[in-house]
Amino acid sequence: MSKKYIDLETLKYVLYDIHKLEDLLTRERFKEHDLESLDLFIDSVKEFSDRDLYPYFKEMDQTPAYYKDGTVIVHEQVKTVMHKSGEMGIIAACFDYEDGGLQIPFSALQAASYIMDAANNQLPGYPGLTQGAAELIVEFGTDSLKEAFLPNMLSGVWGGTMCLTEPQAGSSLSDIVTKATPTNEGFYKISGQKIFISGGDHQFAENIVHLVLARIEGAPKGTRGISLFVVPKNRVQEDGTLTYNDVMTIADFQKMGQRGYCTTHLGFGDSDDCRGWLVGEEHKGLNQMFLMMNGARIAVGRGAAAIAMAAYRTSLQYANERPQGRKLSADGKKNPSEKQSLIIEHPDVRRMLLLQKAIVEGSLSLVMLASKYQDILTTATSEEEKEKYHLLLETIIPIVKTYPSEAGAEAVDNGLQVLGGYGFCTDFSLQQYYRDIRIFALYEGTTGIQSQDLLGRKVTIENGKGLQLLYAEILITIIAASNDEYLKPYAIILGEKLKLSEKILGHLMPFAMKGNYERYLADANLFMEYLSIVVLGWLWLEMAVDAKRELENADRKYSENFYESKIHTMKFYFKYEVPKTNSLAESLMSDEVLTIKNEKEYII
Amino acid sequence: MSKKYIDLETLKYVLYDIHKLEDLLTRERFKEHDLESLDLFIDSVKEFSDRDLYPYFKEMDQTPAYYKDGTVIVHEQVKTVMHKSGEMGIIAACFDYEDGGLQIPFSALQAASYIMDAANNQLPGYPGLTQGAAELIVEFGTDSLKEAFLPNMLSGVWGGTMCLTEPQAGSSLSDIVTKATPTNEGFYKISGQKIFISGGDHQFAENIVHLVLARIEGAPKGTRGISLFVVPKNRVQEDGTLTYNDVMTIADFQKMGQRGYCTTHLGFGDSDDCRGWLVGEEHKGLNQMFLMMNGARIAVGRGAAAIAMAAYRTSLQYANERPQGRKLSADGKKNPSEKQSLIIEHPDVRRMLLLQKAIVEGSLSLVMLASKYQDILTTATSEEEKEKYHLLLETIIPIVKTYPSEAGAEAVDNGLQVLGGYGFCTDFSLQQYYRDIRIFALYEGTTGIQSQDLLGRKVTIENGKGLQLLYAEILITIIAASNDEYLKPYAIILGEKLKLSEKILGHLMPFAMKGNYERYLADANLFMEYLSIVVLGWLWLEMAVDAKRELENADRKYSENFYESKIHTMKFYFKYEVPKTNSLAESLMSDEVLTIKNEKEYII
Repeated sequence: MSKKYIDLETLKYVLYDIHKLEDLLTRERFKEHDLESLDLFIDSVKEFSDRDLYPYFKEMDQTPAYYKDGTVIVHEQVKTVMHKSGEMGIIAACFDYEDGGLQIPFSALQAASYIMDAANNQLPGYPGLTQGAAELIVEFGTDSLKEAFLPNMLSGVWGGTMCLTEPQAGSSLSDIVTKATPTNEGFYKISGQKIFISGGDHQFAENIVHLVLARIEGAPKGTRGISLFVVPKNRVQEDGTLTYNDVMTIADFQKMGQRGYCTTHLGFGDSDDCRGWLVGEEHKGLNQMFLMMNGARIAVGRGAAAIAMAAYRTSLQYANERPQGRKLSADGKKNPSEKQSLIIEHPDVRRMLLLQKAIVEGSLSLVMLASKYQDILTTATSEEEKEKYHLLLETIIPIVKTYPSEAGAEAVDNGLQVLGGYGFCTDFSLQQYYRDIRIFALYEGTTGIQSQDLLGRKVTIENGKGLQLLYAEILITIIAASNDEYLKPYAIILGEKLKLSEKILGHLMPFAMKGNYERYLADANLFMEYLSIVVLGWLWLEMAVDAKRELENADRKYSENFYESKIHTMKFYFKYEVPKTNSLAESLMSDEVLTIKNEKEYII
Repeated sequence: MSKKYIDLETLKYVLYDIHKLEDLLTRERFKEHDLESLDLFIDSVKEFSDRDLYPYFKEMDQTPAYYKDGTVIVHEQVKTVMHKSGEMGIIAACFDYEDGGLQIPFSALQAASYIMDAANNQLPGYPGLTQGAAELIVEFGTDSLKEAFLPNMLSGVWGGTMCLTEPQAGSSLSDIVTKATPTNEGFYKISGQKIFISGGDHQFAENIVHLVLARIEGAPKGTRGISLFVVPKNRVQEDGTLTYNDVMTIADFQKMGQRGYCTTHLGFGDSDDCRGWLVGEEHKGLNQMFLMMNGARIAVGRGAAAIAMAAYRTSLQYANERPQGRKLSADGKKNPSEKQSLIIEHPDVRRMLLLQKAIVEGSLSLVMLASKYQDILTTATSEEEKEKYHLLLETIIPIVKTYPSEAGAEAVDNGLQVLGGYGFCTDFSLQQYYRDIRIFALYEGTTGIQSQDLLGRKVTIENGKGLQLLYAEILITIIAASNDEYLKPYAIILGEKLKLSEKILGHLMPFAMKGNYERYLADANLFMEYLSIVVLGWLWLEMAVDAKRELENADRKYSENFYESKIHTMKFYFKYEVPKTNSLAESLMSDEVLTIKNEKEYII
């Protein structure tokens, strides 16, 4: 099986040359790392992915996780990957030394995780959520909770999950009803049900540590009455042994994709013997969970970007090998005596490949940008720096979660189309990428919810300061590109798109100011699409500026082709994707109000 | 299980009120039918679909067709549906009385088949392809071929297929190598392999009649050397019994969707004993096959439109039943003490539902329009009428095949999203519609091939006469809408889009005239998208004109809501979809050439 599921060169180019990982390494927190050691870490994860993830991609899809006798049966590679992720320090990578971590930059871990996602997206969630759950314990838990859970989680012996969703509440967390009843023994009794819990149970986990949102009896209604608890499947007794903590596995959801990644339905406290320990403050659970949510949302964007990468590489390889059809000659006909062309020679196939490349590599740069912001934020040395990167990160997060998921699915769709009928057949992996990536627009807040977050909260954050800061960053690239005659036309276009976005907001803001939030937010999805294209246009222009400079550099790291392909893809993005902003702007500034419910029933 | 997989009212509205089936019934061919009898026919197919198709939709997906011991094992409902489709006259519907047919209008049959597609898209292909194969025999076969095959095909006792694709040729039919060697006994010996043969074999077929494209020894290269043969799996001996005709089933392709619909790999003449009979003239096979291709392409568009309909109805029902979240109040917050809203009350959910409605019902109207053209063409009473409807049909066919497949997939994607995480779970049917519909952009000529056909052949047909005729039809609606103050703004917009399309063609044509066809066609897909939006905008405006008129009619057939929802959806299409033409035009008229291969390698 080919291991060309990723373009490692581009990954490193984006991480090292575009987002300049090296600059982070001067920071105190990372001082024991250098580029070489991180490069070795990334290479070791690539080898790990080649060996332990990619070969099981199809097999896991064909033998999905399933519920049996109170537990979930998963592919045995889950065990291997959990343990090796522990051994290799992947789970512990970003934690403090004192918590057993390695203080590796978040960006470097994201690059490594991206490789794992591209190799087999059904596996990285197991260690990934364990790491997220451990993070909450580290950030808000007491020392005794840290002691009890952290070592086994960071070593991959125990799994971890986030338990938010409940059947009756769905995305509306204010309607959570899972109950926490205080006792005098330092713990709460937990009762309730949680659904859609990724990695929620499996036959290889000695223990699974759930981070559960629940409501302490008498808590205020809504999101301000939710607390966070650590609720292990098995609790540790005084003698150190484990005993069942009344966390029942009720079912495993069967899904269209990511079939090897279990999605469980859990019941807590069915026998009134489920113990949970408060993490952080009472009623602050949602805020605490959301502090970690940025990481989770970057991970979703990263996963989708990585699947789209794998699909792109697969369809590119096919297009380079498959002969079919012929070039049109000057009379508009084809000569059947001529040799067949490779399909990569057909303009429409090239269009589908370049569209994929533009979305895939652009999404990668977006994910790495957010990861860099996160690194700067967590190591900020001044309040000013902290505020700046906090706002930049908050503003960009909904886009980082959404663009790779939505555009990534479109990229995979084009990859499948490149293979023609074979793309639809299970002998080829495109159809699996197509199924797998579809969940990413639903994970951790759907596209609709992200769009409301972007327009409703992030755009207005501190009177628009987040957006101003983002635009200031974009302007730096516009200025750099304007200094190059070849790139200047694209810089001008991008500048116009920034201005147009201000016009759109000028059209929408009065609705919010008059208290008509429903109208203000009605087309938030379109604004998300608009701003995403602007941001991706920026990231492509940034890559083109670098590539253009390197082409004039005799000592350049990569081939001429490599840099030229980046400039070419930027141009592709500006020809085919950036113009979509105009029609989006037209729809966004239309005075027709068609999606707000009134007394008439238009949807029948 | 709910049988709300289709909005029968809208189907009949489009067929009877918009495309005026009644007008066709004055024609000689249809004189023995009236609206009532055809309505009964459609209702009987609805009952048949409720009873024999819809209940097996999920089950067939979960027990896919598979290869075993030289044949393909399919769900036993295939047998029932084949036989009942024969009994009920569905297969024979459009054939001449003298061939055992019922002379039912093609439009009425398409409406009935649309119901079957919506109910369970894995089944209608079995009788559908049998009908297509029979049509080729009727149109081009000798009387003895008709006698030998037709009765058992029309009664659904024997199946039929179309065998075009070969492993080495894919979409490039000029590279077909299946061989036909003449004998002195009235038949040819056939040898070769065919892939992707829908309904190619199964355990219930007493016989399957393949219509096979092959090359007679010594035939010219390319598409001008292809002939058409009828090659049954079992041939009829002189005593009337059947004997094996050396048509071997090699495999069944396993697919992402339409899993209950078999897709076979066939080998002909492995033991040098496969007999085929020439249908029509030597070397004219491709032209003959393509005469029937319009019907096949309408059927593909119809199938996709129907799947999108079923997905829409399912997500609409969910949105009307699922409570989640709350309305935003004037402070931009939600009050957790308030009752939960139904999700259909959220603007973004309404946007997703209206987008589906616009695509689904618009696609339905498009399919019925093409079917009407086909009916007029086959019953034309003058050369002028014949030419007009031939050109209209040819021009619109690539759009009829493509728009429902591409936009339909987008509609289903939105339907899945309406269900949130549940949409991704196999307990709900949205994920199956999502998988099933994906093949339609590949069937019978991919979107890329249809787009080349549209821009390369149909737009230029008889110096653009086809397009002129289409625009003249659109103008009739524009004029009608302009006479209504309320609809006039939309009429003006549509008129502008027609003009803009002429500007686009004015930009592209010079490339074709200079013999640079590769450049002319490089962005054919974008032109397809452009013209599709114009055509759909037209069809929606046409519906709005009718609805507006009926709202003023005290005797109206449907409810006020019904007509108002059509006008509202038209407005939705003009706000959210029609503006996309502007960005498409910008891309199409850009001077950047980025997808034509030159000496540099940009896709790496």
